[in-house]
Amino acid sequence: MRFDTLNTPAALIDLDRMQRNIARMQSRMDALGVGFRPHVKTTKCREVAEAQIAAGARGITVSTLKEAEQFFDAGVRDIVYAVGMAPTKLAQALALRRKGCDLKIVADSVQTAEAIAAFGNAHGEVFDVWIEVDVDGHRSGIPPESGTLLDVGRALVSGGMRLGGVMAHAGSSYDYDTHDALVRIAEQERAGTVLAAERLRAAGLPCDVVSIGSTPTALTAEQLAGVTEVRAGVYVFFDLVMHNVGVCETSDIALSVLTTVIGHQTDKGWAIVDAGWMAMSRDRGTQRQKHDFGYGQVCTEQGEVIDGYVISGANQEHGIVSRNGEPDLAIAETFPIGTKLRILPNHACATGAQHPEYQAVSADGSVRTWPRFYGW
Amino acid sequence: MRFDTLNTPAALIDLDRMQRNIARMQSRMDALGVGFRPHVKTTKCREVAEAQIAAGARGITVSTLKEAEQFFDAGVRDIVYAVGMAPTKLAQALALRRKGCDLKIVADSVQTAEAIAAFGNAHGEVFDVWIEVDVDGHRSGIPPESGTLLDVGRALVSGGMRLGGVMAHAGSSYDYDTHDALVRIAEQERAGTVLAAERLRAAGLPCDVVSIGSTPTALTAEQLAGVTEVRAGVYVFFDLVMHNVGVCETSDIALSVLTTVIGHQTDKGWAIVDAGWMAMSRDRGTQRQKHDFGYGQVCTEQGEVIDGYVISGANQEHGIVSRNGEPDLAIAETFPIGTKLRILPNHACATGAQHPEYQAVSADGSVRTWPRFYGW
Repeated sequence: MRFDTLNTPAALIDLDRMQRNIARMQSRMDALGVGFRPHVKTTKCREVAEAQIAAGARGITVSTLKEAEQFFDAGVRDIVYAVGMAPTKLAQALALRRKGCDLKIVADSVQTAEAIAAFGNAHGEVFDVWIEVDVDGHRSGIPPESGTLLDVGRALVSGGMRLGGVMAHAGSSYDYDTHDALVRIAEQERAGTVLAAERLRAAGLPCDVVSIGSTPTALTAEQLAGVTEVRAGVYVFFDLVMHNVGVCETSDIALSVLTTVIGHQTDKGWAIVDAGWMAMSRDRGTQRQKHDFGYGQVCTEQGEVIDGYVISGANQEHGIVSRNGEPDLAIAETFPIGTKLRILPNHACATGAQHPEYQAVSADGSVRTWPRFYGW
Repeated sequence: MRFDTLNTPAALIDLDRMQRNIARMQSRMDALGVGFRPHVKTTKCREVAEAQIAAGARGITVSTLKEAEQFFDAGVRDIVYAVGMAPTKLAQALALRRKGCDLKIVADSVQTAEAIAAFGNAHGEVFDVWIEVDVDGHRSGIPPESGTLLDVGRALVSGGMRLGGVMAHAGSSYDYDTHDALVRIAEQERAGTVLAAERLRAAGLPCDVVSIGSTPTALTAEQLAGVTEVRAGVYVFFDLVMHNVGVCETSDIALSVLTTVIGHQTDKGWAIVDAGWMAMSRDRGTQRQKHDFGYGQVCTEQGEVIDGYVISGANQEHGIVSRNGEPDLAIAETFPIGTKLRILPNHACATGAQHPEYQAVSADGSVRTWPRFYGW
């Protein structure tokens, strides 16, 4: 297929940018001396994961058991399901392990650890369980200095399960936008997770894996002593939120939505495009950041940023393109009906999820369609 | 399948509530003496549309040509594609009409009207085109008093196309929350669209259809003189935004997301559930309304509202349940790990779109799986 025959709206991957992003992260991980385990929830796309693995990634991280099933079917064996295990999902996890998947699951409470052990013992399965550590108070996990950490470790080991390691995710790194702050939160993530591992080991419990990561901290950490692997997801595409955080340029953003101008409200300086929130997602992640890009940054069909033009409003299948500040009253001439534009998204994970497939565009304009999956 | 064996997260339809919502809207339209054409973008589900048609709906409204294709394949012939026609999509529209679909398309500019006529003439097709009227300045369309209205009508008729009617959508009705304001915007929508029709007819142009609609205006309009049909979508499920607008009770909301408690942060009064923004969508439509429900209202597994508990934060596959005001420091006892909850969504169109299927639950607890489709 050729780029100029694509239907709109469509989710485009700029393959050159994607490969550059993959290489940048992998070479950073190699230099820091840690394994890299990409989080495939961003793309849910076999071809993207294969590119990450070809560049040196070891195993993957998933956010649903459906992702685990899909990527195991695609040949990936080493998988961490990085969301606290619901006891009701243990049968699904067991089925995957019985098929040969080296699936690791996560717990952050004694209750869940005991439920895993009870289910494992009832079915003759030794689950490989990682304990989730809370390094920044943003979501789940056990604080590294908490007594509960050892209680969970003991519940797993005494219950006959394999305590495989500890993991943390410094999600609060998304809230910062200076290099110094990111270095600080990266060190906090590293130090907290390593502390948790050391406390487990000092208590006589095993802890082989020390897994941390988020795109901002992975790209700014100065040293990762004691860490065995890093996880990150959105770096593969980047997005406007990551641009505002300060870890990429807009010219690094590999995901965009191709759209067509379908009308105007010239008095208001609006062009109406066929990318609404269904194509962009409802994610307004840049709203509280230093630069609010509305529902996305407008670029030319070829991907060059058109400074100051954003998707300022969105209905389900209508986007409103307007200029920041003074309205462009000649917008019907700036962007005539039929004009194609690319829109950079706030949040690549959310925007990708709106699309059944990516159109992967090479520098020569050729396009391959890469399916993605969704649901649970 | 039984309700108590459902995987989570899952999109539930309460069938009793859905049927009540369908009956309420249809009986209102019957009483007002107008046809009713539901907007199926809310559900993208054949079974739901069939229930709407069984209750008396005449034809459907769609927001994408893919919806038109899917519902035509399911046996619906009378379809309005209610988004301004992109000239690049005319071949797709032509293919549908050639298969026997009575597809109506929409224009709000002379340029688009001319493009439709040129394409139609080149392919020997008389497209049925409706002119979009702007009654409240919220998005697309031509103001009813504008000279452009007649120019577009003449471009269609002189170009050999069928000018089928006018249509408007008072999307700004979502911004109000009193009955009086809704009555006013409903009358503005009616009067503006009827004026446009009268101006076309006075100019010697045909205008059979006068189509208006939005869920809030459809449910509050006091009279619809001059209107031939009404379109509305979200009424079939309702949601928290519609609750804040004042056109439904929370006990009318037919769509919810079933979720499982997977952990706690007791010091903060948080329960962590497996419905994050991937299951709820990123829609925060109640944020600027009189009652902000976060990412959704928490209910029991059986659907009873648990007052004051909302999804206050969301990551991709994690939701944070907390109580408004003073934190519930006993939340681990209030909602133990494994507890199932239903979450009412901000915006049914956006939340439904995150799910490949609905679980349609009858009063007796039996469940049917109804697929929905997505993409373009």
